Amino acid sequence: MATGLDKHIDLERISRRLEQLFAVGAPPHANRPGLSAEEQQACELAAGWMAEAGLAVSTDRFGNVFGRLVGKASEGEVWTGSHLDTVPAGGRFDGALGVVCGIEAVGALVRVATPVSTLAVVVFRDEEGWRFGGGTFGSRGICGWLTEEDLDTVDADGVTMRRALADLGLEVTDLDRASPLPNAFVELHIEQGPTLGASGHAIGSVSEIVGMLGGELVIEGRAGHAGTTPMTQRADAAVAAARATVALTDAAAGIPGAVATVGRLELSPGAANVIASRATLTLDLRAPDNERLDALAETVAAAGSGAASSAGCTWELRDVWRHGAVALDPTVRSAIVQSAASVSEPIREMSSGALHDAGVLAASGVLTGMIFVRSNAGGVSHTPEEDSDAGSISVATRVLARTLADLSGV
Amino acid sequence: MATGLDKHIDLERISRRLEQLFAVGAPPHANRPGLSAEEQQACELAAGWMAEAGLAVSTDRFGNVFGRLVGKASEGEVWTGSHLDTVPAGGRFDGALGVVCGIEAVGALVRVATPVSTLAVVVFRDEEGWRFGGGTFGSRGICGWLTEEDLDTVDADGVTMRRALADLGLEVTDLDRASPLPNAFVELHIEQGPTLGASGHAIGSVSEIVGMLGGELVIEGRAGHAGTTPMTQRADAAVAAARATVALTDAAAGIPGAVATVGRLELSPGAANVIASRATLTLDLRAPDNERLDALAETVAAAGSGAASSAGCTWELRDVWRHGAVALDPTVRSAIVQSAASVSEPIREMSSGALHDAGVLAASGVLTGMIFVRSNAGGVSHTPEEDSDAGSISVATRVLARTLADLSGV
Repeated sequence: MATGLDKHIDLERISRRLEQLFAVGAPPHANRPGLSAEEQQACELAAGWMAEAGLAVSTDRFGNVFGRLVGKASEGEVWTGSHLDTVPAGGRFDGALGVVCGIEAVGALVRVATPVSTLAVVVFRDEEGWRFGGGTFGSRGICGWLTEEDLDTVDADGVTMRRALADLGLEVTDLDRASPLPNAFVELHIEQGPTLGASGHAIGSVSEIVGMLGGELVIEGRAGHAGTTPMTQRADAAVAAARATVALTDAAAGIPGAVATVGRLELSPGAANVIASRATLTLDLRAPDNERLDALAETVAAAGSGAASSAGCTWELRDVWRHGAVALDPTVRSAIVQSAASVSEPIREMSSGALHDAGVLAASGVLTGMIFVRSNAGGVSHTPEEDSDAGSISVATRVLARTLADLSGV
Repeated sequence: MATGLDKHIDLERISRRLEQLFAVGAPPHANRPGLSAEEQQACELAAGWMAEAGLAVSTDRFGNVFGRLVGKASEGEVWTGSHLDTVPAGGRFDGALGVVCGIEAVGALVRVATPVSTLAVVVFRDEEGWRFGGGTFGSRGICGWLTEEDLDTVDADGVTMRRALADLGLEVTDLDRASPLPNAFVELHIEQGPTLGASGHAIGSVSEIVGMLGGELVIEGRAGHAGTTPMTQRADAAVAAARATVALTDAAAGIPGAVATVGRLELSPGAANVIASRATLTLDLRAPDNERLDALAETVAAAGSGAASSAGCTWELRDVWRHGAVALDPTVRSAIVQSAASVSEPIREMSSGALHDAGVLAASGVLTGMIFVRSNAGGVSHTPEEDSDAGSISVATRVLARTLADLSGV
């Protein structure tokens, strides 16, 4: 284990860099959507900081940026990093924290030792998928998950992803998995939830990334005049959607660790004096493992469709997508827990309820761990109110540096 | 009572005129919004048919069109009629049926007798209020209900009602009640509901127009990440709105004759993976009398706010408006029932769940009745599928002619 790491970790610099990134396309602008000029500008800032830290900077075919500290062995890299794109009107920490603290941790290691394995900080492109949908573009690219169809996806203005890449000087002709993938990956990320704040921990180690299942729920009833149609003769899609929402969220609450969310709902025709003939809802279901995810999906469908049918309406779940739950690697998790112990910091093992680039690498066979940093402000995320405190960030960066040292053989 | 009326009632002509009106601004155009060129064109068609029937045509300061059969007495008019404007993508019958059948009925009376009281067919302008809100513009104008503020109302394009009137050659400088108002008014209208169809009646006599109370309901919760916020730590506005919708419609179903509708609902921020921080709903409550309307409003507020608060959210009902219930006149209702008996037609006494120009005249002291004509297609209205059958229309027109003869002293 390297000693003298902590004196090279500069909390002021981390804070200053987070503000510099936040200023790129900051509200009232739309922050830094994936594959935009703003994300590109953020990548250039990060590349500069990597070079400043003494790392060898490169960019791959997907626009992912790497800063490498070359090790003694010729194979078997260890990576850390995250993403620099944001949702519209997003915050300072989601993604950016993992890149900035990653540069700080590897930059500190540069000063104290040469590792056996090459260490790299990576900036994955377009994690949020706000512009083209999908998300985790850069990590899926590296892992060979992208298809030609993905590149043909269009944004709201009809611009293809291929065109957006070309505008950034990137021509993706090869969709093969990068060879070799790294041996190990550790992503530091803000929790984006209230769990660490509630339990009084500064940091967490992610044991698994939850499984997700989602889709569009269409409930069909019968339009009618709000004044002239007796309550007993209605097939009101608004009432059916309401009964289904209550039933399915109650059902989810009965499965430990599971969550269910209806975040968007539209009534058609949508006039105050017309009984709704159709309700269109989004459904987002998550559970810590695939058994519970499947149980959740079944329970929700039974409860929701029963409730809709009790209101005289039909229920159809369409455009269903599913990401299986991914368990993170015991060795990497153990390295994180040991590193926390070495700085005398209590650490909480927990699920990640959000997807991350780490999930893509883990599912592709890379030994993967995640360090969560406490969210303040009740865990709000994807908003400028997103917050994390300097103390937690400091602890997390020190634990990350030690974990990377351990995994890379410093 | 006049005899020989029926041979002057031409069902083919009624049907042809309904189609002519439907063709004005028909879908895919937006039909005939109030105070539009399309409504104006429909009024000109009706004015031509009035003249053809031998009626004296005039237009008042609000653009309402009259066709008069002058009686022997100098005072105390009897009116029939309805409106020619429509909602967007509306049907053939709502409003138009009362004007076309009114011309047919008064036109038949022209042929057989001179009444004591002057008879008039009236076309009230902008009953639906689709363009400027409010509705029943023409009848409210006649009854002295309009204000300068009403004339300053703007449409979605920022055009004031005053400007729209000026474009039609109307300059409204006098908002006083017309003097005198008619003695009596009978409006023939499609039911716009399933009641007559279900009970097997061709026609109904309206005993009262229901009271209505409405407003915008705002439910506030707390945004959060759909994956990282445990079910127990949520204040999900979508769930609160769902619980409130279920509770308030269940509560309404417990009050005889009452109805409650949530026709529009928006979640904010409205993303699939974000817990809704706010739900905005429309609320439309109706009951046959003011006691039940007040009980309904209280019950709904208690049930809805309790449900929202059980989901950790706040409830606020704002922009509340109320139209009291209006009982129609026993003398006119009796004339309608007698007329139905004279043609051996069973008639159902019933509430009107929708507002009508008749409600404005009744609330202004005019002795008022309404003849409802059976809706087919399950009572759907405000859509091109709106339907009524020739048999019911024929019966209704004959009953209307007899009722007008009775009230005007033929």
